[in-house]
Amino acid sequence: MNSYIKDQVEQFQVRNKNRGRLLVSCPDQPGIVSTISQFLFSHQANIIESSQYSTNPEGGSFFIRIEFECPNLDEKASKMEQEFTGIAGEFSMEWSFTHVYNLKKVAIFVSKELHCLLELLWEWQSGDLMADIALVISNHEEAREVVENLNIPFYHIPANKDIRQEVEEKQLKLLKEYDIDLIVLARYMQILTPTFVSANPNKIINIHHSFLPAFIGARPYERAYNRGVKLIGATSHYVTNDLDEGPIIEQDISRVDHRDNVDKLKKIGRGVERSVLVRAVKWHLEDRILVHGNKTIVF
Amino acid sequence: MNSYIKDQVEQFQVRNKNRGRLLVSCPDQPGIVSTISQFLFSHQANIIESSQYSTNPEGGSFFIRIEFECPNLDEKASKMEQEFTGIAGEFSMEWSFTHVYNLKKVAIFVSKELHCLLELLWEWQSGDLMADIALVISNHEEAREVVENLNIPFYHIPANKDIRQEVEEKQLKLLKEYDIDLIVLARYMQILTPTFVSANPNKIINIHHSFLPAFIGARPYERAYNRGVKLIGATSHYVTNDLDEGPIIEQDISRVDHRDNVDKLKKIGRGVERSVLVRAVKWHLEDRILVHGNKTIVF
Amino acid sequence: MNSYIKDQVEQFQVRNKNRGRLLVSCPDQPGIVSTISQFLFSHQANIIESSQYSTNPEGGSFFIRIEFECPNLDEKASKMEQEFTGIAGEFSMEWSFTHVYNLKKVAIFVSKELHCLLELLWEWQSGDLMADIALVISNHEEAREVVENLNIPFYHIPANKDIRQEVEEKQLKLLKEYDIDLIVLARYMQILTPTFVSANPNKIINIHHSFLPAFIGARPYERAYNRGVKLIGATSHYVTNDLDEGPIIEQDISRVDHRDNVDKLKKIGRGVERSVLVRAVKWHLEDRILVHGNKTIVF
Amino acid sequence: MNSYIKDQVEQFQVRNKNRGRLLVSCPDQPGIVSTISQFLFSHQANIIESSQYSTNPEGGSFFIRIEFECPNLDEKASKMEQEFTGIAGEFSMEWSFTHVYNLKKVAIFVSKELHCLLELLWEWQSGDLMADIALVISNHEEAREVVENLNIPFYHIPANKDIRQEVEEKQLKLLKEYDIDLIVLARYMQILTPTFVSANPNKIINIHHSFLPAFIGARPYERAYNRGVKLIGATSHYVTNDLDEGPIIEQDISRVDHRDNVDKLKKIGRGVERSVLVRAVKWHLEDRILVHGNKTIVF
Repeated sequence: MNSYIKDQVEQFQVRNKNRGRLLVSCPDQPGIVSTISQFLFSHQANIIESSQYSTNPEGGSFFIRIEFECPNLDEKASKMEQEFTGIAGEFSMEWSFTHVYNLKKVAIFVSKELHCLLELLWEWQSGDLMADIALVISNHEEAREVVENLNIPFYHIPANKDIRQEVEEKQLKLLKEYDIDLIVLARYMQILTPTFVSANPNKIINIHHSFLPAFIGARPYERAYNRGVKLIGATSHYVTNDLDEGPIIEQDISRVDHRDNVDKLKKIGRGVERSVLVRAVKWHLEDRILVHGNKTIVF
Repeated sequence: MNSYIKDQVEQFQVRNKNRGRLLVSCPDQPGIVSTISQFLFSHQANIIESSQYSTNPEGGSFFIRIEFECPNLDEKASKMEQEFTGIAGEFSMEWSFTHVYNLKKVAIFVSKELHCLLELLWEWQSGDLMADIALVISNHEEAREVVENLNIPFYHIPANKDIRQEVEEKQLKLLKEYDIDLIVLARYMQILTPTFVSANPNKIINIHHSFLPAFIGARPYERAYNRGVKLIGATSHYVTNDLDEGPIIEQDISRVDHRDNVDKLKKIGRGVERSVLVRAVKWHLEDRILVHGNKTIVF
Repeated sequence: MNSYIKDQVEQFQVRNKNRGRLLVSCPDQPGIVSTISQFLFSHQANIIESSQYSTNPEGGSFFIRIEFECPNLDEKASKMEQEFTGIAGEFSMEWSFTHVYNLKKVAIFVSKELHCLLELLWEWQSGDLMADIALVISNHEEAREVVENLNIPFYHIPANKDIRQEVEEKQLKLLKEYDIDLIVLARYMQILTPTFVSANPNKIINIHHSFLPAFIGARPYERAYNRGVKLIGATSHYVTNDLDEGPIIEQDISRVDHRDNVDKLKKIGRGVERSVLVRAVKWHLEDRILVHGNKTIVF
Repeated sequence: MNSYIKDQVEQFQVRNKNRGRLLVSCPDQPGIVSTISQFLFSHQANIIESSQYSTNPEGGSFFIRIEFECPNLDEKASKMEQEFTGIAGEFSMEWSFTHVYNLKKVAIFVSKELHCLLELLWEWQSGDLMADIALVISNHEEAREVVENLNIPFYHIPANKDIRQEVEEKQLKLLKEYDIDLIVLARYMQILTPTFVSANPNKIINIHHSFLPAFIGARPYERAYNRGVKLIGATSHYVTNDLDEGPIIEQDISRVDHRDNVDKLKKIGRGVERSVLVRAVKWHLEDRILVHGNKTIVF
């Protein structure tokens, strides 16, 4: 880690020494907000920002994201978590409690095309993407130099469909060793097995180079060109076992015209992919995303 | 009111029989969310959607918007309001309590150019802008036919700067008579006096035909053309006594190019003005806007 | 036609008394521009705006749109057309020669949802869509009042798949009677037969309420909602015999979020449909669109 | 230059061995297109893409951009230029004749904030910005490492307003030495003197970090924050002697909200600045921009 980013991390951690976040999904019923806010108040926590949403008035699902300041959070955190477990049980909550001070550990997977990786690293170097980028895994060597120059461990694990199991075993071992919280597929062109996906539910973010559900699968820019579309897009989503069918986090598009051939579409598309993936990753890092069935709530 | 819009209103009121909204601004301190949610829970109100924001962790301002379902809200509303007055005093809150069932009463002011008025009426006729459009006031006759065809009262009050006081007295009398909650200046090309503005704080929404603060004042499209800009914009804002300087609610832009003369800029601009004004008005009607100094928080 | 629009048409025709347009597609070869511009120059025509594009340097296709001023165009037009026929033969051109003074005759087809029709009529009334809207055909009665109020002939032709042939015969008869140049399907929810389509090549513009090729076919908003997309779109295209597969003219999108149910998506989508359809129709009326295989070149 | 970019340049030059561009501005009159296209045809040049625009039918200005393929262009270029000088004289043309094969030589000026420089270098490394980046000049040392790593000469010339003349003399000497065609101010925070600007007419592109003409001058993000705008923008323009008043090439915006403090606005703004500057630079490199008074025509 270079000195600038070290500095940025330090400042971030000073700023967020007492900052916590609570993410909750549960069946809706009266009294949830009251109970949670009472709980936070009883620990001297001051709510800074909160967003809440219920799918419908009666019998729906309830979602909330709360960001709060709590004096001496480091000392209190584990006690608060423990206490909250009781409340969570009562309301059948799925929940996560985050001490913002602790950066999430991220693994980036990449193949030969580096633009998404480079955008992530850039944002990270500028102090705009606050995470611990713990390692980069690739089935090719193209990314090694840029990654190692930043003192990030780089692992070359050649991959193809015949050795998928063996490859994923190595990858899972590394993810465990580095205690990874989030896997970002930054144009990693290999399909993951159900074993790998199940081991990381809602923890793998992919970027697909089309406006899903248009052009699911391979070669979307070629197909967009052949269809004569006037906009091309990109989609970031959590990975599930259905190819390109996981919960969509973010999408965006860019205008193209008749003069743009497939190569030009790819170049324009790279810009969209970069920004769409970075937005999705940042939202995940800021605990803004809740998954509900095959959809996301982004607060 | 035609039968379709009557129908839409009826359905809206059935849907929102028990729907309430609470908007609060106050100095930040711990315990506000807890107190409010406890209050709502004690009245069997279930929070459906809430958004909260504080300007900074220590010594800042606190803003919240809560939408809730409460059985028999019509019977309970006044008692709840009364009870909440106590809480509000304790926390030095500015607040409003809305029973969504009761449509807000809106007056639209317009001059000769009708596009913003027509967009508002269109959205209203489609059931997409839920308000009671109580009257239209104009210093010209152009809008009469379309307004009266919809059975909305139309008042022609000629205006110019020499008779401003007299004109505004007539207008204020009408606003009082119709018990108006919101005044929309849909390209009403007259300046309002401080008396008129002070009588309606944060209750007058204007559309300015530029991307403020660029091109404050008159003839923005001519000036945009002369400057050779590549984007033109529109801005909706609450009216204060400083011309085009009130709290901005919404802005948007549209791309233009060297082929577009002033007339074309105006045509393109009309589209932006229409959508920007309608978004601002809808947000106001849905109690989504809180004013903080010279800015808005839009939830 | 009301007096304002009459006035607008008159001004437009004065402005465009001598304005012509030439649209040409042909196999590429050197000398085409030179030949065409020599031809125009020899008739004292001054080129005001031109755009040209070739698909690739060697053996590709050539496309050009030229707008020119030519003194006494009304007298010269037929002679020029005749003379150009010779040039066109030499270069195997498909071409059209337009005297802008002559408004194109348009038929609008609509079903029950009126937003696209209303947007077209609005733009027409504002003098922003310069065409002769000759008639409106609908399989329902909803549009009659608004259409007849503008003194546009309205034809109610009930339709369903069992009587498709008979219905289309009536429609084709009307199109012939009114000498129609362009058919706009403004949310006309009936499928047209190959007979009807073949009779009107590149003369029928449809609006599809999705970002094609996503959600081809029925109920796109429901399917967008179920997929959890973050953007919804609309697509205008020329109609061919493959459902929703014709050459795309224009597309656009609007951002949506987790709070938007199907009804809200439809409302947001209507705004996109309106603007996408109007842009496509205007470009057609301004002779800006050339069809190349299943794609469009829009100059 | 690394091997990838060497490769890209080589491919580009092979592709563009016979590709030329002609940019012309002149008083409008009949026969210009005809004369130019006749000229090109007489040299066996095939027009690939052309765009033309006149400010108004009578007595206006004429602008054209033509891209053509011409066998053995390298041998013919100087003879063609010479011959065209005659035509140009006849029509009082300002014009430029470009052999695309010859990359334009670019100097980048930068201060401490590197995001715009990095974006330019990135696009250049990806082969998406085809230019010869000949040198980088900075009044600080921050950019040295990244620039020299790419084998681009880096010159540190400390600057402040007291030594402006001396600094600019050094800079102009370098620009001459490297035979520079285009100067890009990639967030170079020094004001240039009229001497420097006059020496490089329409050859200096600046990025201003606001949506001009809003927030001319210093600290635009602070002022945008204080005004409470809902969109922030960036503007690229040619530099003239009026601060932030030169011909605008490109502008774009990004949406912000009440939660974004000045720091966040700067971060969001950097993304807009990057893309706006790169688009303007690419258009200049592709000879797409004609300056007309204080405006640009971008083809």
